[in-house]
Amino acid sequence: MNLALLGCGLLGGSLAAAWRKSGRVASVSGYDLVTTQAQRAVALGIVDRAAASVADAVCDADCIVMATPVGSMAALLAELARHAPQKAIITDVGSTKVELIAQARAALGDAFARFVPAHPIAGGALPGIEHASADLFQGCWVITTPQELTRPDALEQIESNWIACGASVERMSADEHDRIFAAVSHLPHLLAFALVQLVASQPDGARKLRFAGAGFRDFTRIAASDPAMWRDVALANRNALGSELAQFRGQLERLQVAVDRGDAQALERLFAEASQVRRNQGFGTDGGDHDV
Amino acid sequence: MNLALLGCGLLGGSLAAAWRKSGRVASVSGYDLVTTQAQRAVALGIVDRAAASVADAVCDADCIVMATPVGSMAALLAELARHAPQKAIITDVGSTKVELIAQARAALGDAFARFVPAHPIAGGALPGIEHASADLFQGCWVITTPQELTRPDALEQIESNWIACGASVERMSADEHDRIFAAVSHLPHLLAFALVQLVASQPDGARKLRFAGAGFRDFTRIAASDPAMWRDVALANRNALGSELAQFRGQLERLQVAVDRGDAQALERLFAEASQVRRNQGFGTDGGDHDV
Repeated sequence: MNLALLGCGLLGGSLAAAWRKSGRVASVSGYDLVTTQAQRAVALGIVDRAAASVADAVCDADCIVMATPVGSMAALLAELARHAPQKAIITDVGSTKVELIAQARAALGDAFARFVPAHPIAGGALPGIEHASADLFQGCWVITTPQELTRPDALEQIESNWIACGASVERMSADEHDRIFAAVSHLPHLLAFALVQLVASQPDGARKLRFAGAGFRDFTRIAASDPAMWRDVALANRNALGSELAQFRGQLERLQVAVDRGDAQALERLFAEASQVRRNQGFGTDGGDHDV
Repeated sequence: MNLALLGCGLLGGSLAAAWRKSGRVASVSGYDLVTTQAQRAVALGIVDRAAASVADAVCDADCIVMATPVGSMAALLAELARHAPQKAIITDVGSTKVELIAQARAALGDAFARFVPAHPIAGGALPGIEHASADLFQGCWVITTPQELTRPDALEQIESNWIACGASVERMSADEHDRIFAAVSHLPHLLAFALVQLVASQPDGARKLRFAGAGFRDFTRIAASDPAMWRDVALANRNALGSELAQFRGQLERLQVAVDRGDAQALERLFAEASQVRRNQGFGTDGGDHDV
């Protein structure tokens, strides 16, 4: 199939490389708002042709992948409504789904039936297509959130593409998707950003950061993420995120009472429950933090 | 010098191995509440003699290291008051200082002048002396918090031991120490425990955890830590920790308003400040989370 890649970053580049490696894709046209990005994708052999516009990129596409930050997808959908060929399946890699699906429903008209919302749970520590890898999705989950109108053959096509490059596919409702990732992705990002900003803004912040060790480093790794991208995610998923955040604040209120009272039992009970869950979670032997 | 190691775990074992490797230590006697731990330390060649009691371990010691969880150090100090030889310097590796110093002052009498409070900012992902390493402290910070009564030669001896095995030493007040590590170590542990416990306790918790990715894995790594150890740390440092927690809750209250209102500017400003600080922090190229 001919693939049109809209957004030539780490995820989009890895998708194109992976789908090509699995034999699902014959040619790739690429478009990026930053022209040099699409050219770099060509230089890396991931994209065959750097397109001058969305219309140019999709003109002969069998499949169109939106791999841009979620905040820019509404504008992209408006362009696809005008330029996507009748035959083309449209999909995405965005990390929020409810709002995107509403935007797609409003923008795409009949083509909405050919839109397959998808979210590969993968990423890398370093951004940009130069870090793209055809093996990025091996062993990863890909969530699809098909709608009643979604054409079964389009859904089947996208899901089989993902399975062919080593991913496991799970279908769920867009509501459930957004609730799950509010809890296990968006809220942790918010907390990591919040902690780093708080410490840095304190009068002795620089000195505190100077002595931060491995625990802080890992806990705050995701606070180095792209601010604009995560602003968009937080906004697009603000209902579910706001609800998880409110629950977490309730949890911290209880912890504050336990710390202030010196309630050893309450602290140990909560820590022990968390520790057991975390150790059983099958992330391998990444262990806890065993400094004292 | 003859070293008495009280507590034969990852940190204590690494300390004994590192001090011996740097030529500072001739013989090591080891004691652990869990008898097999001290025997394992002997089998690994880290400890020369497994002692039957604290008194037995320290009988001929020039230097005594308390490398047990901070919650057990008060009991240890009471034993040292009775059994530590006049010549012995006493030090520790605990991650809280104000309360420990008060306990030492109350317990040790004249020997308090030979107590050098210290905290190596090091640790490993896996616990136990079988993961000990003589190189664990290379390039790490060791904080000392000497008191007015602390004998300069004792302080000098301990600091030079640490420098000899590749660590950098920083002196500060116990108050400052506890404030710094409340912010960059104890609070992150509390938050990681709190998030994992919260998600796991939700009705759809197991399903949420099933789809957690690399960001969640790193953010919650420290939630696999030993619950009893971290209960003790939280209690020993509850004043500073309570204060940092209260500030963080204020930060989250502001974020809740921004999320609920969809305040893009406020979110991006906070995320951008955090991201810039975190990227400049010199943890190397560990990057952010670049999935979308």
